[in-house]
Amino acid sequence: MLRVALFGAGRIGQVHARSITEHGGAHLTWVCDPIETAATTLAEAYRAKSSLDPQDALEDPSVDAVLIASATATHTDLIRRSVLAGKKVLCEKPIDLDMAKIDACWSDIAGHAPFVMLGFNRRFDPSFREVRERAAAGEIGPIRAVRITSRDPQPPPAAYLGVSGGMFRDMTIHDFDMARFQLGDFVEVQAMTSTNGLEMFEAANDHAQAIVVMRAASGALCTIVNSRSCAYGYDQRLEAFGDLGSLEAGNLTATAVRSFSAKETEAAGPVLNFFLERYMPAYKAEFAEFVTAIREDRAPSVGFADGRAALVLAEAAIESVATGKTVQITGG
Amino acid sequence: MLRVALFGAGRIGQVHARSITEHGGAHLTWVCDPIETAATTLAEAYRAKSSLDPQDALEDPSVDAVLIASATATHTDLIRRSVLAGKKVLCEKPIDLDMAKIDACWSDIAGHAPFVMLGFNRRFDPSFREVRERAAAGEIGPIRAVRITSRDPQPPPAAYLGVSGGMFRDMTIHDFDMARFQLGDFVEVQAMTSTNGLEMFEAANDHAQAIVVMRAASGALCTIVNSRSCAYGYDQRLEAFGDLGSLEAGNLTATAVRSFSAKETEAAGPVLNFFLERYMPAYKAEFAEFVTAIREDRAPSVGFADGRAALVLAEAAIESVATGKTVQITGG
Amino acid sequence: MLRVALFGAGRIGQVHARSITEHGGAHLTWVCDPIETAATTLAEAYRAKSSLDPQDALEDPSVDAVLIASATATHTDLIRRSVLAGKKVLCEKPIDLDMAKIDACWSDIAGHAPFVMLGFNRRFDPSFREVRERAAAGEIGPIRAVRITSRDPQPPPAAYLGVSGGMFRDMTIHDFDMARFQLGDFVEVQAMTSTNGLEMFEAANDHAQAIVVMRAASGALCTIVNSRSCAYGYDQRLEAFGDLGSLEAGNLTATAVRSFSAKETEAAGPVLNFFLERYMPAYKAEFAEFVTAIREDRAPSVGFADGRAALVLAEAAIESVATGKTVQITGG
Amino acid sequence: MLRVALFGAGRIGQVHARSITEHGGAHLTWVCDPIETAATTLAEAYRAKSSLDPQDALEDPSVDAVLIASATATHTDLIRRSVLAGKKVLCEKPIDLDMAKIDACWSDIAGHAPFVMLGFNRRFDPSFREVRERAAAGEIGPIRAVRITSRDPQPPPAAYLGVSGGMFRDMTIHDFDMARFQLGDFVEVQAMTSTNGLEMFEAANDHAQAIVVMRAASGALCTIVNSRSCAYGYDQRLEAFGDLGSLEAGNLTATAVRSFSAKETEAAGPVLNFFLERYMPAYKAEFAEFVTAIREDRAPSVGFADGRAALVLAEAAIESVATGKTVQITGG
Repeated sequence: MLRVALFGAGRIGQVHARSITEHGGAHLTWVCDPIETAATTLAEAYRAKSSLDPQDALEDPSVDAVLIASATATHTDLIRRSVLAGKKVLCEKPIDLDMAKIDACWSDIAGHAPFVMLGFNRRFDPSFREVRERAAAGEIGPIRAVRITSRDPQPPPAAYLGVSGGMFRDMTIHDFDMARFQLGDFVEVQAMTSTNGLEMFEAANDHAQAIVVMRAASGALCTIVNSRSCAYGYDQRLEAFGDLGSLEAGNLTATAVRSFSAKETEAAGPVLNFFLERYMPAYKAEFAEFVTAIREDRAPSVGFADGRAALVLAEAAIESVATGKTVQITGG
Repeated sequence: MLRVALFGAGRIGQVHARSITEHGGAHLTWVCDPIETAATTLAEAYRAKSSLDPQDALEDPSVDAVLIASATATHTDLIRRSVLAGKKVLCEKPIDLDMAKIDACWSDIAGHAPFVMLGFNRRFDPSFREVRERAAAGEIGPIRAVRITSRDPQPPPAAYLGVSGGMFRDMTIHDFDMARFQLGDFVEVQAMTSTNGLEMFEAANDHAQAIVVMRAASGALCTIVNSRSCAYGYDQRLEAFGDLGSLEAGNLTATAVRSFSAKETEAAGPVLNFFLERYMPAYKAEFAEFVTAIREDRAPSVGFADGRAALVLAEAAIESVATGKTVQITGG
Repeated sequence: MLRVALFGAGRIGQVHARSITEHGGAHLTWVCDPIETAATTLAEAYRAKSSLDPQDALEDPSVDAVLIASATATHTDLIRRSVLAGKKVLCEKPIDLDMAKIDACWSDIAGHAPFVMLGFNRRFDPSFREVRERAAAGEIGPIRAVRITSRDPQPPPAAYLGVSGGMFRDMTIHDFDMARFQLGDFVEVQAMTSTNGLEMFEAANDHAQAIVVMRAASGALCTIVNSRSCAYGYDQRLEAFGDLGSLEAGNLTATAVRSFSAKETEAAGPVLNFFLERYMPAYKAEFAEFVTAIREDRAPSVGFADGRAALVLAEAAIESVATGKTVQITGG
Repeated sequence: MLRVALFGAGRIGQVHARSITEHGGAHLTWVCDPIETAATTLAEAYRAKSSLDPQDALEDPSVDAVLIASATATHTDLIRRSVLAGKKVLCEKPIDLDMAKIDACWSDIAGHAPFVMLGFNRRFDPSFREVRERAAAGEIGPIRAVRITSRDPQPPPAAYLGVSGGMFRDMTIHDFDMARFQLGDFVEVQAMTSTNGLEMFEAANDHAQAIVVMRAASGALCTIVNSRSCAYGYDQRLEAFGDLGSLEAGNLTATAVRSFSAKETEAAGPVLNFFLERYMPAYKAEFAEFVTAIREDRAPSVGFADGRAALVLAEAAIESVATGKTVQITGG
């Protein structure tokens, strides 16, 4: 039974608390959060201990592993302390918004046989994973292009934009990782964005939409289409195009009902509304991989380096938007 | 160049006039209709001769073939006269509503090497035909069941109900033939009907809906679902179910556009509204088969006996509704 | 916290054990099964007590409710004893294969304020329920027809056929209840069946396929299409057809991936293979309704009378096949 | 009756010959082609006159209009001579591969009230047109993004690559025009290409794939995804994404048949194989617009300036690939 401390009791922390407790081989032992009621409420629901200070959990020798779901700015510090305390780590994306902090963190932990898995949950979505596995098995021949459509149902609050690090580091980061999951490393990045003329995004120097085009080391091309809003819900699709055919992962709806009327036919319901609904199976599968990798004493399938590499692509996209140039990735 | 006389200048006659003229190997030479303006208008549009009396065309030695699209009650008389005049015949369904007249007609023509093709146009619909061909090629293994969904967009005028011969002889007749096209001969027929509580159908002793279940000589079961009205258009579908899989022919829409909104996703447009739109390619392919069979000096793929056999099934369904019993088909 | 005893530790008992423990408001306290290892294995997995004799659980005053998932022949006895012991009951379908035993059971319990919910899980399938709710809300106008497609992926073992009570009582029973869920009571039943020429079904005097057509008290028509085998998986579909439109509940697949190749396009994966996968959410929702109805001190939404009524339709279908006649339902 | 001379009797000329003759209000009077057998064969099939020299048709005062479907290099010369001869012109795309020649042509004809329609047939595809019309009617609110997928089933012969003007001028030109049809003028263009490592494209300094991203004057973003080959056929799709929803035009298949087997479900057939099948209705509608615009004495809905503007975007894409920079369009 893997004993897990959870850092962060907010929305995503609650998702992880549920994944931990529903997994047959893990036990939630601590919930730590600087907001006392958040920590205690979640801890009580799952009969775990609670604290405002993560140190309490790190010093508990019975704790095997730490799941970091706290504010982004705290990630590198908590990763460092957790690794040095001998704990296995599963950390929510992104590692940090600042490459220097990421590299400093890695320097500090690299010599301590770090086990750090990154929470790129979409890699564990059954549809995206099936595309990867069938493509890797050769079903569609050499892969020439991947297309990722990723649109949120609604923009975040304006206040959040200021601290988010911007669309590429905050939202597209998932798509950069998905691109790497499907195609490996990239060598070139182009991007174009739009505010849709909305004051909110202009004030924050941020974007309502972005399109990123990248060249993989393999020669394949990748397109990412992002939007901060989408009338019909959380649009999450992927196409892998190869010489022998193509695989498309479509959206999910709550039921299999289709309606027919004088106005239209075969109308499905809205797509699953947001990440908690769409990616709940992915969060559970992600945590299962965490437990399995620890049990098998091997590296997790997605680690610290993947978290850094996704941020490298985000930085390149930011530079491309600023300069109007294609950006080369070196050592990407 | 096949020289064709058309009997009947109504809606369906106009469809055939167009098929004849668009076929590269045929020429419309006569249009005969008891309504003078109908005959002359259609004839002028295609530079054909016109007459109120079919006899004018039958006596024209340059006429090779006759297409009978006149009122049902005139069919057997026109078939008989056309065959005796040495013309090839393509006759709209049904041959007649009265089995005795059908059999008398056959008696009269049987000795004259009759070439009589029946206008069961749906056999030539590309989707239904593809199902038949793939099933016949063994793709789905032994066929165990066929399901036909056939719903008209709107009921016919009340006045028509009285002369139509009833739903089974007038509307389901197409589905009985489709069932025979897919499964061959039948041995048992059950039916249940409903007026939907509508005065119009009760007054005419007719039906708003019917469900027919039949057993084929092969042992396969067939279900026909009929409705006189359908909010979303002309619902024409077919499923062939076999041991190795299934083939479904779906509805057709005018374009490939799908819409997505806050209320629904993947909504297609209404299905093609009625038989002229849905089955235009079938009418053209039907006429092409007529020309080809004549050229190749062989029997048409669907003939007089098929017209009679469909009516036998209609009569059995009528009897089943009246008696509440499964009706055995002998010599079907 | 509702304390529940589970009778029956077989495949379906295991499904229920999981639903009970995953429900936040219930606790599995006893597992009783005449096969000792079955009882103890399941009990240990969920830290419940086990016994070969249900009486141990019935005499435990801390037990609030009983979930009967044992062999069909034991259902009426266990319902009777559980009600008399003051327990709430959730019983798997069918109540019994014998109407006399069902009626005797009801006689014995009727005076004891029985709370007996019947395990017609498909009523709780999110897609079928959505169809019911949208139709009930008037979206498609008066409902004129319902069509149920229900095909198992593979036939049961030959040995099971002999004790199953036959296809209508064992398999179609679910569809009879679904028909009642969608359309209420029925007044007429017709049926036609086929063995597909298979010795296995002929020997057992049972069927490989069945088609049932029924008239509802409302005048609507219902078609049930059953097959004991289906190459592409567990085919579970439903169409409700009304004056203003139609609602169709389609099959479910494991992922949203579609493939495109030189041979075909938009190919989805196989449908969810069998009832445990397809109906797991339904089993959980069914148990939730059980808990909620008890909490709210009201009758369950599907009860003993529904279990009896479904069997009445099964008996009518059996009679229709035997006599070749439409069977009237009285007091249905 | 519009009397039309056709210049060019190759594959596309034959398509136009058929559209002209099937249109009720036009008549094919001349077929001119430098290859004598091509000219005479096509002319005889439609009972037109033939010549090796277009001048014969231009000097025929009975000729109202000219359809230019000859080699690209001859377009500007034939446009000029036709306009000066007082003929209405429908010219296949592209006008020319050389902007200077295009501008010189316009200079020469501008003062002669030129009626020159450009053969951007896809604007007349019923699905793409429906998207445009519904979007223009406001159904999806302000349009924020358009995505065009355009993949040929197979690359052209290597010999053709050398004279084609390159992928952007030859193939993407259609998509540039479609982008303009949906979104109006553009102000910025980015592009990335790949040879897929194929010698054929490398030798010709051409591309196997291209992705173009453009910003419209309206602020909307447009993505064009091109491939010279596609295993599943001629992939022609479009998505218009707006604040209130989205409209997607999908691919077309020959029939509405879907297959189900142990391996997969809902598998459709291959998409319509190439432009003659997919766009035949578009070619007919295009010619109908030509006739209608002449009759109504108005400018055609797509003209000379549209042909030039599409080439401006192609040149910008070429520059972007060469420089790795986003290219600004001025006066676009």
